[in-house]
Amino acid sequence: MSEYKKSERVAAIVRMLTDSPNRLFNLSYFMEMLNAAKSSISEDLDTIDNVFKNLGLGELETVTGAAGGIRYIPRKDKSKYREFIDGLCINLSKVERIIPGGFLYTADILYTPSICSEIGEVLASCFASKKPDYIVTVETKGIPPAFMTARALGVPLVICKHDNRVTEGSSVSINYISGSTKNIRTMSLSKRSMEPNSKVVIIDDFMKGGGTARGMMNLMKEFNAEVLGIGVVIATREPKTKLVDDYVSLIELVDIDEEKGTVELKCGNWERL
Amino acid sequence: MSEYKKSERVAAIVRMLTDSPNRLFNLSYFMEMLNAAKSSISEDLDTIDNVFKNLGLGELETVTGAAGGIRYIPRKDKSKYREFIDGLCINLSKVERIIPGGFLYTADILYTPSICSEIGEVLASCFASKKPDYIVTVETKGIPPAFMTARALGVPLVICKHDNRVTEGSSVSINYISGSTKNIRTMSLSKRSMEPNSKVVIIDDFMKGGGTARGMMNLMKEFNAEVLGIGVVIATREPKTKLVDDYVSLIELVDIDEEKGTVELKCGNWERL
Repeated sequence: MSEYKKSERVAAIVRMLTDSPNRLFNLSYFMEMLNAAKSSISEDLDTIDNVFKNLGLGELETVTGAAGGIRYIPRKDKSKYREFIDGLCINLSKVERIIPGGFLYTADILYTPSICSEIGEVLASCFASKKPDYIVTVETKGIPPAFMTARALGVPLVICKHDNRVTEGSSVSINYISGSTKNIRTMSLSKRSMEPNSKVVIIDDFMKGGGTARGMMNLMKEFNAEVLGIGVVIATREPKTKLVDDYVSLIELVDIDEEKGTVELKCGNWERL
Repeated sequence: MSEYKKSERVAAIVRMLTDSPNRLFNLSYFMEMLNAAKSSISEDLDTIDNVFKNLGLGELETVTGAAGGIRYIPRKDKSKYREFIDGLCINLSKVERIIPGGFLYTADILYTPSICSEIGEVLASCFASKKPDYIVTVETKGIPPAFMTARALGVPLVICKHDNRVTEGSSVSINYISGSTKNIRTMSLSKRSMEPNSKVVIIDDFMKGGGTARGMMNLMKEFNAEVLGIGVVIATREPKTKLVDDYVSLIELVDIDEEKGTVELKCGNWERL
């Protein structure tokens, strides 16, 4: 019989499962750690699944078969995500966030782990069913939200760079045209970064013209990777026609008026998914 | 009486606490969420603390007083961290990681969330007692480990850049000399990035000559910030005298021999703390 009580086993199992979202744990892992019978662990997992569902804290997914087990999926009710995004919109529309030139200061939001973790969870929930092998982003500000999306999906992140660092070995480079400024820029990725023929989702912090996302799509072609989708934290309403056809945004930036000191933000198109 | 059983309450509390390390939760938060008496929640927390300590899964810390509550600290036994670092050393010493020029390919390790999360936890454990207000890093490869260190400590990340992006408003720039290549580089940070007179810990993925860390220290002076410490994932053994006096490394890179195809790595100086 287990030396641990049910509530103690549950505490340990929740800690392990939620610390590695989407990682598949074999039941024997918990049986050994807690010196418990399979039937006890199964009951514990049912308890956890029930209360998580009741309180909207995520879900447990059972995979059957010899290589099967249990994994934690950090999927919450849409209403909870909606509440979170609405809160973000209020925070981001503060007048002091307006930067001369019509930009919006967002770094504090993206670089605060508790907020960025939730952003990653919402983005992950948009693409989880597509089962990507990697999340792809480009330096710099997109890295934290892309990394937290990757964490929620339990897959590695791949970071494209704006120069060729000698420390990562041979790389593939492409040129692309910034959608808004029309400047030519270079983007490169180490050949070791990903397996060929992978499935990827592109994540970035911001999209205006869509040139950067288009650049990443072109770079992915060089790796024979299939792009399953594109997700951004904030997308501008204008220009309506972007250089990528399809993307998911958490927040839509409708307008920044420097004169009046107003920022208009709306919930993005992520809810439609 | 609570509608939830003890094991159900424990599942929910563990999920909330461990999802936001170092965030202080008032007990009334859990009392409301679970419709439970204070005495029940207190007992639940004791149960969690006990089993976490027994299994080396972290600790709960109680803060007394009106603004008090409970927080989760992801601190494990040194032996567990040692095991993890030893495993990293074995992984990183594979011959196929050697990149022409005597570099080591580490991006896959740093960009895999489950591994990087543990790296951040070990680094956080080295500096937790100093209570920094921010973690500071410079783009690009140091961002994921620095972000996970910030997450474990429950503080925001600050990212220094190698150019001046117009989208972040006015910024402070400094020049610094790379410790190993002796090139002059620029590093800048948006003025909005941090409150003046803050306490910070600098985190990076790699240190050779220490020039980049020295640069960040100089940039911090411009913000009147106090640098409490410097932590890196990998530090080279040579040059022994680096441009910063004191730093913590998880792994020491003793030697890369391209001819022989060997990489020699050792556990860094983090254990001494």
